[in-house]
Amino acid sequence: MLQFAQFGAGRIGTIHAGNITASGAAALRYVVDVDRKAATALARRHGAKVTDTATALADPEVDAVLIASSTDTHADLVIAAARAGKAIFCEKPIDLSLARVDACLAAVRKARVPIMVGFNRRFDPSFAALQGRIAAGDIGVVEQVIISSRDPGLPPLGYLKVSGGQFRDMTIHDFDMARWLLGEEPVEVYATGSVLVDPAVGRIGDIDSAMVVMRTRSGRLCHINNSRRASYGYDQRIEVHGSKGRLMAGNRVPTTVELADGAAVSTDKPLHFFLERYAEAYRFELAAFIEAVRMRKRMPVGPADGRQALVLAEAALRSLRTRRPVRVSTIGGGRGR
Amino acid sequence: MLQFAQFGAGRIGTIHAGNITASGAAALRYVVDVDRKAATALARRHGAKVTDTATALADPEVDAVLIASSTDTHADLVIAAARAGKAIFCEKPIDLSLARVDACLAAVRKARVPIMVGFNRRFDPSFAALQGRIAAGDIGVVEQVIISSRDPGLPPLGYLKVSGGQFRDMTIHDFDMARWLLGEEPVEVYATGSVLVDPAVGRIGDIDSAMVVMRTRSGRLCHINNSRRASYGYDQRIEVHGSKGRLMAGNRVPTTVELADGAAVSTDKPLHFFLERYAEAYRFELAAFIEAVRMRKRMPVGPADGRQALVLAEAALRSLRTRRPVRVSTIGGGRGR
Amino acid sequence: MLQFAQFGAGRIGTIHAGNITASGAAALRYVVDVDRKAATALARRHGAKVTDTATALADPEVDAVLIASSTDTHADLVIAAARAGKAIFCEKPIDLSLARVDACLAAVRKARVPIMVGFNRRFDPSFAALQGRIAAGDIGVVEQVIISSRDPGLPPLGYLKVSGGQFRDMTIHDFDMARWLLGEEPVEVYATGSVLVDPAVGRIGDIDSAMVVMRTRSGRLCHINNSRRASYGYDQRIEVHGSKGRLMAGNRVPTTVELADGAAVSTDKPLHFFLERYAEAYRFELAAFIEAVRMRKRMPVGPADGRQALVLAEAALRSLRTRRPVRVSTIGGGRGR
Amino acid sequence: MLQFAQFGAGRIGTIHAGNITASGAAALRYVVDVDRKAATALARRHGAKVTDTATALADPEVDAVLIASSTDTHADLVIAAARAGKAIFCEKPIDLSLARVDACLAAVRKARVPIMVGFNRRFDPSFAALQGRIAAGDIGVVEQVIISSRDPGLPPLGYLKVSGGQFRDMTIHDFDMARWLLGEEPVEVYATGSVLVDPAVGRIGDIDSAMVVMRTRSGRLCHINNSRRASYGYDQRIEVHGSKGRLMAGNRVPTTVELADGAAVSTDKPLHFFLERYAEAYRFELAAFIEAVRMRKRMPVGPADGRQALVLAEAALRSLRTRRPVRVSTIGGGRGR
Repeated sequence: MLQFAQFGAGRIGTIHAGNITASGAAALRYVVDVDRKAATALARRHGAKVTDTATALADPEVDAVLIASSTDTHADLVIAAARAGKAIFCEKPIDLSLARVDACLAAVRKARVPIMVGFNRRFDPSFAALQGRIAAGDIGVVEQVIISSRDPGLPPLGYLKVSGGQFRDMTIHDFDMARWLLGEEPVEVYATGSVLVDPAVGRIGDIDSAMVVMRTRSGRLCHINNSRRASYGYDQRIEVHGSKGRLMAGNRVPTTVELADGAAVSTDKPLHFFLERYAEAYRFELAAFIEAVRMRKRMPVGPADGRQALVLAEAALRSLRTRRPVRVSTIGGGRGR
Repeated sequence: MLQFAQFGAGRIGTIHAGNITASGAAALRYVVDVDRKAATALARRHGAKVTDTATALADPEVDAVLIASSTDTHADLVIAAARAGKAIFCEKPIDLSLARVDACLAAVRKARVPIMVGFNRRFDPSFAALQGRIAAGDIGVVEQVIISSRDPGLPPLGYLKVSGGQFRDMTIHDFDMARWLLGEEPVEVYATGSVLVDPAVGRIGDIDSAMVVMRTRSGRLCHINNSRRASYGYDQRIEVHGSKGRLMAGNRVPTTVELADGAAVSTDKPLHFFLERYAEAYRFELAAFIEAVRMRKRMPVGPADGRQALVLAEAALRSLRTRRPVRVSTIGGGRGR
Repeated sequence: MLQFAQFGAGRIGTIHAGNITASGAAALRYVVDVDRKAATALARRHGAKVTDTATALADPEVDAVLIASSTDTHADLVIAAARAGKAIFCEKPIDLSLARVDACLAAVRKARVPIMVGFNRRFDPSFAALQGRIAAGDIGVVEQVIISSRDPGLPPLGYLKVSGGQFRDMTIHDFDMARWLLGEEPVEVYATGSVLVDPAVGRIGDIDSAMVVMRTRSGRLCHINNSRRASYGYDQRIEVHGSKGRLMAGNRVPTTVELADGAAVSTDKPLHFFLERYAEAYRFELAAFIEAVRMRKRMPVGPADGRQALVLAEAALRSLRTRRPVRVSTIGGGRGR
Repeated sequence: MLQFAQFGAGRIGTIHAGNITASGAAALRYVVDVDRKAATALARRHGAKVTDTATALADPEVDAVLIASSTDTHADLVIAAARAGKAIFCEKPIDLSLARVDACLAAVRKARVPIMVGFNRRFDPSFAALQGRIAAGDIGVVEQVIISSRDPGLPPLGYLKVSGGQFRDMTIHDFDMARWLLGEEPVEVYATGSVLVDPAVGRIGDIDSAMVVMRTRSGRLCHINNSRRASYGYDQRIEVHGSKGRLMAGNRVPTTVELADGAAVSTDKPLHFFLERYAEAYRFELAAFIEAVRMRKRMPVGPADGRQALVLAEAALRSLRTRRPVRVSTIGGGRGR
């Protein structure tokens, strides 16, 4: 049984803790959170102990850490865990600053510990199957990727203020999906955005609606559209065009019920909440991490993946501000080797 | 925590044991199975003990029994558990003989213990939502119910021989759904069947393909079609027509991936295996039982439901043999009060 | 150019006349209708003349007659047209009486004229494609056919009184589809019905809701469900199960528009009116008739087809009345050779 | 009856001529085409005469001209028809040069004749219904428009060489749809493209794959994706997001047949050929023109619409070449009043 120390007992930490226990191959040993009450509740539910960071990392029984605390604490925890020789699962993003991400990755490389970044969507059964079918050649050579990624509603402004902005907070998932599906690195990013949902978002210097176009070296194209509001639910769809066909994967619905009456034929809205929509993705993601640690396999989402999605987000932000396409190679000094 | 003694550690027992543990409101205390190895493995996974029937029922700590052993053992276990004063969850059917079912129900009534029969489909989220919308009046007065219920493949002949025949083994679920959705008891049953899948089924006196039509007192109509083979997966669909519209609920698919290529637009086949298709149904079913026992609420599927579905199966069997519609009132002496 | 004399200038006659002209291979020469005004209007639109039956049939320039007048006039017109040596397209049914149908068919055989009965649904692009794929072996051997056939609303009672009842008026189309898709003749029919839509239907001795089950010699099964009311539109669906898979074909919608909002995801209701739903079917049907007459090919829907669908309707009616399954061989003295 | 002189007897001219005749409110009087044989065949089918441009325009009986000849002849014909005082229906584009378009529009204004540009997609029943529902407020305020527009296959290189390039030839339809659906004029255009389908396209200086992002003054966003190849058929989909919901409209399929077998659940590919896909659109488009001429109503697609779509295409082309977003106001000196 892989022994975990987990940092963060909030909403997403609760999900991860449940998946650790349910995996059958790992156990939650410690929970660390500044909110002592939340830590205690979560620890009790999983037979774990509440402790502090130093104690957790000092315990030689701990094999792995799961970092699900607030974003500003990720980098320090990654570095400390690396020094302690633990395998690391870190929720996205590692940090909002590329320089700090690079410092983390350097620490990880030096310590030679495995690290996985929490891009959960790669583990969604539909998106994973779609990617598998691209890899199997079902649509020939990939030519265009179209990602629709729309949140059901605006998060609290307090959250948005420290989120790093829409590209680093929300689109970063789509940048990762784009890289994963395009089969080539984007070399140029054009991004534009608007404040259409709530003027308050504009007042804190952010946007709530965005469109991005990216190109790869060989000319493959990718479009991402985002909004912070989709009244009908969490809208997460992917479409990939290749030389031989098209693959699509879409939303999940709570039931298959269809009503036909005098007005229309109507079906369920997509699942509304990201924890429901991606419940399986979170479970499979953690299982993949546990498996990789136990079997000493290559991490399915490595540190370069975490860094490169952030690079694309930075490029998008610069494009938004300069109103011009941005060469990815001008961001952060290359691919972070 | 509700303490369970479970009889049966096979495929379906494994599912139920998992749901007991995962419920958070109950614990598995004992596992009883003639297959000692299976019992031991299951007990270990859930921190339970392997024991025999008498010991399990004699333990005053045991609140409830879960009967998931082979069909021929159900009746004796129900009676013994009733006498021991335990709440009873019994997999369908209680017994293949209506007389024995009546004996069981008499024992239960005498002991005044709660009993629930495992008609899991009522707890499928889609079917439950469909029924809820009928109850909410979305389609006005129910007029016709159409149930398509087709297994992915033929079970082993050894199983079929002791199954009680297609109507009592397979269609019994559909009879329960029909009663639940029609909102009135069927009063007449016409059934016909064929051996189309495998002649070996005919040689043991059973059928593998069937069509049923039922009427209620006020003239509501219900059709059921069954087959023991559906090469594309487990096919479970319901359609209800009312004075104001139509409700349908259908199959679940593993992913939302769609491929469009030079040949066709294709999507996933329905889930193939009943334990996957009804995974949520089994979980919600057991949660409903636990809740009803703990809160001393009325059982969501009571003993009369178990009996009446069997009555309809008997009527169908008689119709098949006599080639005539059968009045339900001529079966088993009424509704078993 | 094939010259047509058409009997009947009503709703369905208007459709056929338009298709004659639009075919590019035929012309409307005469229109005959007791409603002189309707005849004149239709004739003018197509450059035809209004005349009487005798004149139309006596004109040697007339190659073919199209009978779309009221049902009670069909038989006399068929016999007269046969004697005049014209090719005959007759709307369903030839007659409500099997004896009169037999008299018609005898006249047709004697005159050796080609006759086609208007079972338009065989020419619906979706149903035709479905049947073609059965014939191509896409689902192996046919085992079960399920036909849902539901009218959007009740016709006027005046029409119902002379319609011959639901089985001969409405289900007759489904009986034809069943024969066409089963690949074997039904040998036994069980039918039941109710008055659920409007008690007035019951007062004239008819039903408005029905369910039928039929068997073929080798045990293939067919279910038909009917209602005179479907608030959501004209509901016409077919499902065929074979040893290797399932084929379905369904309703047509006016547009592909889908709305997702805070309430649901909703799409268009099916087309409401049979003339819209089957517009293409009527066009292809007439083109097939014209082609068969011109090329002296076998009629795609022959006189035996018209007769046999009526035999099944008669069997269903007897089953409804006797509350027992009826052997098809006991109706009307065999297959009408 | 509106009398038409038609220029062009090719593929698209054949469609328009058929729709003139079928309209019931107009007649084809003249056909003009350099291909005398094609002109003769088409004229004969519709009872029209073959003639030359001068004769056709000099005939005072001619009310309207339909210009469906090759693109390079459109401008001269528009100017000549305007001087002759005829109502004008002109296939898109009026011309590939904005200066010549402006000269045409000046001639039309001077002659005070009505002119309609052939943006047929506005008349597609699904797209028209979608636009109508936006107008009805079904999704609140429009925020984002996403247009997928992909041809089934590459046209001949000979055609591409004189086509004006992908933006002016193909995307121009999407630019018109974008303007129509956004409810505001785009003020900035970013476009990028690649040669992914066939290197030969690159050798003639064109692209075959493109992505466009546009902004309106208030920040509404629009994305267009194009490809000259979609192995699964003609792919034409629109998605509009508003403050209250999402509207989508998609492809049409030849039949509703669905096959479920051991491999997958598969349905028809979209219609392959644009004349099939937009058959209804062409019919409704011409009916709208005829109606507008007869009732002296405002043209549903006016000359400014034709011009502005071309302006957006020019902006896209400049963006592609300069690799920067382009302000629409810098193209062609404003909106062409």
